[in-house]
Amino acid sequence: MRIESDSLGQLNIPQSTYYGIHTQRALNNFPISKASTHPELIRAFIEIKQAAAQTNATSGNLNRSVAKHIVSATKILLNQPIDTTMFPISDIQGGAGTSTNMNVNEVIANLALEKVGRQRGDYQFIHPNDHVNMGQSTNDTYPSAGKIALIRLLAPLLNELTQLIDALGNKADEFSTTYKMGRTQLQDAVPMTLGNSFHAWLKPLLRDNLRIQSARDSLYYLNMGGSAIGSGINVSYHYQVHIVPNLAGITKLPLKQAHDLFDATQNLDSFVALSGTLKTLAVNLSKIANDLRLLSSGPRSGLLEINLPAKQAGSSIMPGKVNPVIPEVVNQVAFEYFGFDATVTAAAEAGQLELNAFEPIVFKSLFTGIEHLTAAMATLRINAIDGITSNKNRLAQDIDLSVSFATAMAPIVGYQLAAKMAKESLRTGKSLRQIAEKKNCFTPEELAHIFKVEDIVINARTPEHGLVLHAPEQKNS
Amino acid sequence: MRIESDSLGQLNIPQSTYYGIHTQRALNNFPISKASTHPELIRAFIEIKQAAAQTNATSGNLNRSVAKHIVSATKILLNQPIDTTMFPISDIQGGAGTSTNMNVNEVIANLALEKVGRQRGDYQFIHPNDHVNMGQSTNDTYPSAGKIALIRLLAPLLNELTQLIDALGNKADEFSTTYKMGRTQLQDAVPMTLGNSFHAWLKPLLRDNLRIQSARDSLYYLNMGGSAIGSGINVSYHYQVHIVPNLAGITKLPLKQAHDLFDATQNLDSFVALSGTLKTLAVNLSKIANDLRLLSSGPRSGLLEINLPAKQAGSSIMPGKVNPVIPEVVNQVAFEYFGFDATVTAAAEAGQLELNAFEPIVFKSLFTGIEHLTAAMATLRINAIDGITSNKNRLAQDIDLSVSFATAMAPIVGYQLAAKMAKESLRTGKSLRQIAEKKNCFTPEELAHIFKVEDIVINARTPEHGLVLHAPEQKNS
Amino acid sequence: MRIESDSLGQLNIPQSTYYGIHTQRALNNFPISKASTHPELIRAFIEIKQAAAQTNATSGNLNRSVAKHIVSATKILLNQPIDTTMFPISDIQGGAGTSTNMNVNEVIANLALEKVGRQRGDYQFIHPNDHVNMGQSTNDTYPSAGKIALIRLLAPLLNELTQLIDALGNKADEFSTTYKMGRTQLQDAVPMTLGNSFHAWLKPLLRDNLRIQSARDSLYYLNMGGSAIGSGINVSYHYQVHIVPNLAGITKLPLKQAHDLFDATQNLDSFVALSGTLKTLAVNLSKIANDLRLLSSGPRSGLLEINLPAKQAGSSIMPGKVNPVIPEVVNQVAFEYFGFDATVTAAAEAGQLELNAFEPIVFKSLFTGIEHLTAAMATLRINAIDGITSNKNRLAQDIDLSVSFATAMAPIVGYQLAAKMAKESLRTGKSLRQIAEKKNCFTPEELAHIFKVEDIVINARTPEHGLVLHAPEQKNS
Amino acid sequence: MRIESDSLGQLNIPQSTYYGIHTQRALNNFPISKASTHPELIRAFIEIKQAAAQTNATSGNLNRSVAKHIVSATKILLNQPIDTTMFPISDIQGGAGTSTNMNVNEVIANLALEKVGRQRGDYQFIHPNDHVNMGQSTNDTYPSAGKIALIRLLAPLLNELTQLIDALGNKADEFSTTYKMGRTQLQDAVPMTLGNSFHAWLKPLLRDNLRIQSARDSLYYLNMGGSAIGSGINVSYHYQVHIVPNLAGITKLPLKQAHDLFDATQNLDSFVALSGTLKTLAVNLSKIANDLRLLSSGPRSGLLEINLPAKQAGSSIMPGKVNPVIPEVVNQVAFEYFGFDATVTAAAEAGQLELNAFEPIVFKSLFTGIEHLTAAMATLRINAIDGITSNKNRLAQDIDLSVSFATAMAPIVGYQLAAKMAKESLRTGKSLRQIAEKKNCFTPEELAHIFKVEDIVINARTPEHGLVLHAPEQKNS
Repeated sequence: MRIESDSLGQLNIPQSTYYGIHTQRALNNFPISKASTHPELIRAFIEIKQAAAQTNATSGNLNRSVAKHIVSATKILLNQPIDTTMFPISDIQGGAGTSTNMNVNEVIANLALEKVGRQRGDYQFIHPNDHVNMGQSTNDTYPSAGKIALIRLLAPLLNELTQLIDALGNKADEFSTTYKMGRTQLQDAVPMTLGNSFHAWLKPLLRDNLRIQSARDSLYYLNMGGSAIGSGINVSYHYQVHIVPNLAGITKLPLKQAHDLFDATQNLDSFVALSGTLKTLAVNLSKIANDLRLLSSGPRSGLLEINLPAKQAGSSIMPGKVNPVIPEVVNQVAFEYFGFDATVTAAAEAGQLELNAFEPIVFKSLFTGIEHLTAAMATLRINAIDGITSNKNRLAQDIDLSVSFATAMAPIVGYQLAAKMAKESLRTGKSLRQIAEKKNCFTPEELAHIFKVEDIVINARTPEHGLVLHAPEQKNS
Repeated sequence: MRIESDSLGQLNIPQSTYYGIHTQRALNNFPISKASTHPELIRAFIEIKQAAAQTNATSGNLNRSVAKHIVSATKILLNQPIDTTMFPISDIQGGAGTSTNMNVNEVIANLALEKVGRQRGDYQFIHPNDHVNMGQSTNDTYPSAGKIALIRLLAPLLNELTQLIDALGNKADEFSTTYKMGRTQLQDAVPMTLGNSFHAWLKPLLRDNLRIQSARDSLYYLNMGGSAIGSGINVSYHYQVHIVPNLAGITKLPLKQAHDLFDATQNLDSFVALSGTLKTLAVNLSKIANDLRLLSSGPRSGLLEINLPAKQAGSSIMPGKVNPVIPEVVNQVAFEYFGFDATVTAAAEAGQLELNAFEPIVFKSLFTGIEHLTAAMATLRINAIDGITSNKNRLAQDIDLSVSFATAMAPIVGYQLAAKMAKESLRTGKSLRQIAEKKNCFTPEELAHIFKVEDIVINARTPEHGLVLHAPEQKNS
Repeated sequence: MRIESDSLGQLNIPQSTYYGIHTQRALNNFPISKASTHPELIRAFIEIKQAAAQTNATSGNLNRSVAKHIVSATKILLNQPIDTTMFPISDIQGGAGTSTNMNVNEVIANLALEKVGRQRGDYQFIHPNDHVNMGQSTNDTYPSAGKIALIRLLAPLLNELTQLIDALGNKADEFSTTYKMGRTQLQDAVPMTLGNSFHAWLKPLLRDNLRIQSARDSLYYLNMGGSAIGSGINVSYHYQVHIVPNLAGITKLPLKQAHDLFDATQNLDSFVALSGTLKTLAVNLSKIANDLRLLSSGPRSGLLEINLPAKQAGSSIMPGKVNPVIPEVVNQVAFEYFGFDATVTAAAEAGQLELNAFEPIVFKSLFTGIEHLTAAMATLRINAIDGITSNKNRLAQDIDLSVSFATAMAPIVGYQLAAKMAKESLRTGKSLRQIAEKKNCFTPEELAHIFKVEDIVINARTPEHGLVLHAPEQKNS
Repeated sequence: MRIESDSLGQLNIPQSTYYGIHTQRALNNFPISKASTHPELIRAFIEIKQAAAQTNATSGNLNRSVAKHIVSATKILLNQPIDTTMFPISDIQGGAGTSTNMNVNEVIANLALEKVGRQRGDYQFIHPNDHVNMGQSTNDTYPSAGKIALIRLLAPLLNELTQLIDALGNKADEFSTTYKMGRTQLQDAVPMTLGNSFHAWLKPLLRDNLRIQSARDSLYYLNMGGSAIGSGINVSYHYQVHIVPNLAGITKLPLKQAHDLFDATQNLDSFVALSGTLKTLAVNLSKIANDLRLLSSGPRSGLLEINLPAKQAGSSIMPGKVNPVIPEVVNQVAFEYFGFDATVTAAAEAGQLELNAFEPIVFKSLFTGIEHLTAAMATLRINAIDGITSNKNRLAQDIDLSVSFATAMAPIVGYQLAAKMAKESLRTGKSLRQIAEKKNCFTPEELAHIFKVEDIVINARTPEHGLVLHAPEQKNS
């Protein structure tokens, strides 16, 4: 045991721990969740400490030897997976992230002390606040670390999103001449191709890609140099000018300093906006999952249009049952995201004056949401989309039986007479063609046209997948 | 009374009404809300009908005389305020907007019939579906009309947003040297200027402006030409090529045709994304309103930093009480918007296959939300922001009494000793300066520096307002 | 024009208006929504004023003649529909309802003055605050009026809910022996009856009924007598004891005084809880609507199990199409309610210290939500449920074709062999019975049992409708 | 490695694992979240398996020896903490819980096999589906296990809620004569006691207690015996009658069988309703946290009414700063819950026909939400409420300076003259008493009354804590 003290008093700290009194107090105060802080947040924090030590050394404010030891400690930590026993505090914490910042300061100081052969806790030589935290405040490091972590977690999400778009595009090509009935409001409408369905699913994902990227771009602006509340108190001019470029170098991210550091400290609108784009992605994924489940309903009393790959036995009691478990888990991740968005909104709105104290729950929600959406897209692509097949016979039969050709009749005989023939077909069970032929109101050429799906559905041919991805119009349509 | 019929049977329609049987059935089916459809939606619908008649006439599919009468009728309707007795159906309707489309078709047909001296209901000559609706479906006209209406409702919103930004900018300038205490987590932090506060409020609104514009840009892409489900059934090639350019000419909006008309018919992601940006605006406005109410709390037992203009007596029982009623109504409009966003999300997620049947409630939510946010920003600017004054004495006194200067001491004597002096000041009631002087640990120059706010707060001077608006970095920081 | 004055100055008021300066200021300050305050709120407010005048007269605090004139004015107002030109302020207002209270005070005072032959605005004789508002504050009258209005709006909702339950129960009886395939996860599961479906839809509505009633019971507790913040300032003991009983007499509602008037003034949890029960009702209605749309999908390429009554032509372009417009509008009202619940939650959470200033938006959301849910249930019952028919042939055919009987085989031959036979049936297209017969692993009696739905589905017979409604267990199961 | 097979094919399973092929497939299909299923859900599942084996043995459907081994295995599992290596599947899974049910079946079967000296995977002797799952379906076991888990997780929540109420009650007593200014809309209103504040905070929690208990009561009704979709297929009459009583005996919970098993299988309204009550609790906790942060704002430029216990250093840069970290974490848990409620609502609404496939995310949300709310209440009580002290001098000074006594003047001199004096006091800085004395409009007795808080605040004395808890009226006021 070692004894550490702060302005509230003293505390026994196990000698083996790298963290110190501030971390210990946080553990006592916030026994809410067992999940420790996301490692990407910790990693970004350590990079910030490294950049700060280097910058403070250059400015002459920090003893170069101390700076060197701090930098060494950060390098050790960055070269290994984040050790949650060093950083045990949960993302569900009060104090606007102060505990996490303190935790990182303490671990770096003690690791540096250890490396120079000193006792942990011997902070006179290397102090968590005076040295490791020099020129910084939780007010600027915590949001900055959060932004870096988000940028990094978004990369795999955007990658998976692109792969999912490609997978859907491949299927759009594969089914580009597979005609089927389209439906509005779950009622038979007019023919289309199955390729049209897949293409219509991928287009909103293309827009999601652009929207998420656009929202992510706001995250590159950091409030480092703002220290407390954005005021820049205790920050040297040298530090303020160089901290962000130095951090950009370390993280290899195009980070920039925000224009108004008070704004960048207190406002969480960039996170709300990002969450809005992720929620939109969730809506689109859920729509795809819903449609997949509908179109694959069956095996006997459903729509039977497509077959999802069988992935696991569907029932503990019903032998042979196979369920659309992959789209189902996608739905659930989407529903979970709706919740994250609600949390982010409530927390962002609750910010007061110069700081939003509720960033920890905002970050936790976004981190988890991004990871779950990423994994959901991967399993959707690999375990569902890639293996989808169509029931061609059923699709063709549905078209043959349908009364949708009445729509193609209407320009010739008028809406009302066409409606009458459609109703007769439904009532009698005779095919619409039979009825139309008897009515003697169409020429043979007209009849041929009316019942030829390739003729009447002028948009059925989907644009090529590759074209879609790169056309200038891709952004919005 | 006249008798009209559809595929379900006959109905008596009062001879005086311009609408017909389809509208009457909708009135019977959806007696939910008394508020009729938003006039901007009706207006856009009429423009679409005009564009379609012209395009169908040029393509040779529509008799030129019929087309001329249809166009004349639309011009009459567009030259007067939308008459809700003609268009009585509520935005809360089933059927994916079919009833509204039918309503518009019927009114135009009957008005055209009337103008050529025929009886209303004499649809053989000019038919709501065969002529007015030619080449169209509710599937393409309803979302297109909704987008046009949204684009138009967003213009005043963006205008009010800009005016609010300017108003906040003027106050940022006015208070650019008015020092005050900054707070984090409602606890005294370090000094800043009141101008910093106003500038920090306006910056997210600048981002909102860009985000909303970016989301709006998606709305210019219409699915006209897609007719049913995006298939283009019953649409001539001429019509498909020219309908959107013609509509762009009539509406004077840079409308374009969507790339994939199936996508543009079934996916509501653009509305969800737009709603996300409006919700972010609502969050930012609510934050401003919350801060204004906090800073103006008092008149005796509050923070007393600023004075809002007195707008009305605040209490029916407490004489002389004045309340922050303008920020309060802004909060409420923000909370209302959170609800609209939840509704838009749920409705968008519920879309199935080739159509989302729940667009009516999406449009209603967005229309109302946009109008309320616009009006809330106007009253916030006019009745609150423009008239705000500061309590200079109180602000100065707060700084003098504060222990925030301990932060400026820390780089010299270390975090721990500075904390000790801060605690002593709070415990004894002596000023921090008194205590610092006694401690003999600072030179006179250091002391002068520590207690001079202009020295320690290096970011206190806000960038000029005009500069902020146009700087290249404005977009993100 | 007459001139009125308040502590902020003077204002010209049109001589013809009954409202005065406070109302006029509110109209200037809150030009957000054109919809005026809900008439039930105004009506309850007037009843409160009547009760207060009577109680103050009895206590001796209010001149009996003045009280008599006030009471007369309230009776005139209560005997006619609420005139929105008298009460023009919107529910979207800042000030915690003060403007509405002031509006009611002013109209009553001026109407009373008029009736005794005095000029409107001659408040010395009858004063809106000193006399009409005596012993009251907006803090107690506004929440109390809101509760009374809610109680009254809930009565038709509960009535419609009961009628809807009965309608579903009738259909449950009608279809009690109509066997059909049940589905889990949209995949064929095992047989059941169509009556089971209707009964499963009505059961949660029975629970909704109890939940909403339980939440409503909290609304009977009013904070009248609390005046400002619940303190009871300016309230006589006589008044405090008698105001609620007197109001109960006037409203004919079993109103009671809250136990802790500070609590009852500041906390909106009863409204959040009520909204939670209404949201649960919305979830249940949306589930029913979703199922109805699914089961009625077709007419050729859908599930085709039931037929909804045709209520209107379903398409402007597709002749003969009929859509499930009634369930669709129910879905939309449910989605709208999800939004209202989000608004109520945000507004309730934002209350600070002794008052929640955001009650106006809470009330507006609840009022509209209750009315829309009520109307949605009515149209669902009348225009959909009551007219539903089943497609018996299709239902029987689905059962015959299904492989669900494999479930009944499993207890005899084991899960794995049963699964194998199910797969073979699906692969070969042969019926499961054919395959089972060939396998020779069942006795004829076993086979007869396995393929007899009445035998294998032991719960298919639904409990009688009437029994369900009154059984002691109804509350929870 | 051992090889297991199902209807999809074969898979290698590590010989060391107790789970089998179905679990392995689920792990492959759902790599979304690393957190494994909540142990309380697993525990309840095992109890269900025990009850089922016993019941099936008694009914004669299950070999008594097999049943005995199954029961033994369940007892072993229940006598140790749930081992997540045995039950590794996450709560975020598709398939309506089938994977979890299969997982439990497999572990029990293999453990039983092991105990009788057989190889894991040797399912002919004891089969996961045919024996362990006999008479059951995921459709009935999963919701039943979830309900049992929820009931158990609610017990500590209700216990903490009661303790928090008691803690607030103690403070209400402690501060029952500590007068302070009340505020509405953050503006000074009229006097009250600090005890009133605490009492007003505890009252909604009393209602929460009753609401949550009432919602919990629905959970006691299980759909065991319904097997697939509630049909009771493959369930013996004996089993159906005895399974729930037997399970009640094992769990020691008053479980009952639901009345309509189709309903109880497909509808999640009880969970939505429960979530609504938990969200209401979250709103109430957040309101308390908000108020605590406001009243403890300072230490120099805030309201300074109360002192929260200092729990940790509040800043890494500002020495001596102490922040309200405990209320802050409570706020965040509340915001998180708002998200859980949104997720539960979306998932419940998405249920289709005979099953809701999205129960897993509903349970996960409720489990986490309940645990976090429980822990948040504990830390709020222990680390904040219990240690709160008041700043008596400041409170008294605020009252002395206030113009709130103008309210007490109004009954004597009228609202308008009282307002005038209040304004004069605020403008001149003179005390209201000075101004009142000069005006000569009050007798000395009147003046003494007006300025005596004990006289004017008639409700200041809070009801005794104990009384409140047990009074018949507690439920609603």
